[in-house]
Amino acid sequence: MNDVVFTPIGVIHTPWTEMAGMPLQAVAAQGVTGTITIAPEYAAGLRDLDGFSHLILLYHLHQMTGHQLEVTPYLDTVTRGIFATRSPKRPNPIGFSVVRLLSVAGETLTIADVDMLDGTPLLDLKPYVPAFDAHATERIGWFATNVEKVHRVRADERFR
Amino acid sequence: MNDVVFTPIGVIHTPWTEMAGMPLQAVAAQGVTGTITIAPEYAAGLRDLDGFSHLILLYHLHQMTGHQLEVTPYLDTVTRGIFATRSPKRPNPIGFSVVRLLSVAGETLTIADVDMLDGTPLLDLKPYVPAFDAHATERIGWFATNVEKVHRVRADERFR
Repeated sequence: MNDVVFTPIGVIHTPWTEMAGMPLQAVAAQGVTGTITIAPEYAAGLRDLDGFSHLILLYHLHQMTGHQLEVTPYLDTVTRGIFATRSPKRPNPIGFSVVRLLSVAGETLTIADVDMLDGTPLLDLKPYVPAFDAHATERIGWFATNVEKVHRVRADERFR
Repeated sequence: MNDVVFTPIGVIHTPWTEMAGMPLQAVAAQGVTGTITIAPEYAAGLRDLDGFSHLILLYHLHQMTGHQLEVTPYLDTVTRGIFATRSPKRPNPIGFSVVRLLSVAGETLTIADVDMLDGTPLLDLKPYVPAFDAHATERIGWFATNVEKVHRVRADERFR
């Protein structure tokens, strides 16, 4: 299959300058604020965005080099298939987070609940709409006994 | 900023061979089944995936050429900034859907609620975990008066 090439539309600025100590998910970064600077050529696409309280961010996990098909997730103690985890060490390192939108001023968005590194290239942003995006699950695999740890476990050196 | 290059990890097969008539969101494609064929070199990454009932799919909207910064969404009658919509005509055409996982057999996943074209290149798949991914919103912008239309509106020729 053909490779796909994307050009970042902006940069995410956060307090997290290194992976060590970073929250594992936006839900564990409650209240931590950051900003997004959208490249001027895309600014017209931000119209109407200020009507939304939550955004989906898709971004390049730009510090990742190489991937692993089996990893021991931060929240677990045994190896899992990479696609059954949220580990950044994936074949295509695309990050996904839902953050709160606090304000829009020109090309700058102020956001809360940031769980990505400072300087992260933003690939896309979409409005979060619960009718489309919130789902009740029957099974959450190995997370069932581990998900609550997300609030106390932080990233370590594992993926440097 | 540097371009980012991704290599698809597999292909999504669905009954939708053209955009006309396709559901706009997975929530409007309830019960429509499809399959994902993962490239053999990534098959080891599928271990443990069968424990999950819902998956996040990130894929290349490969039929899109060019983008628009302002679009009239299928669900609305006036133009909106592209990033305030879920329109495929985005600067980086990355699709996002949450689908149900019905079974895993070797490198083939059977999924339900598919709202993407047959032959869509898959970039990443992640387990859907409500504790991370389901959010209560305060505001959903222009969707507030339009979101219920998703069950009766289908894609038309607009984005050909």
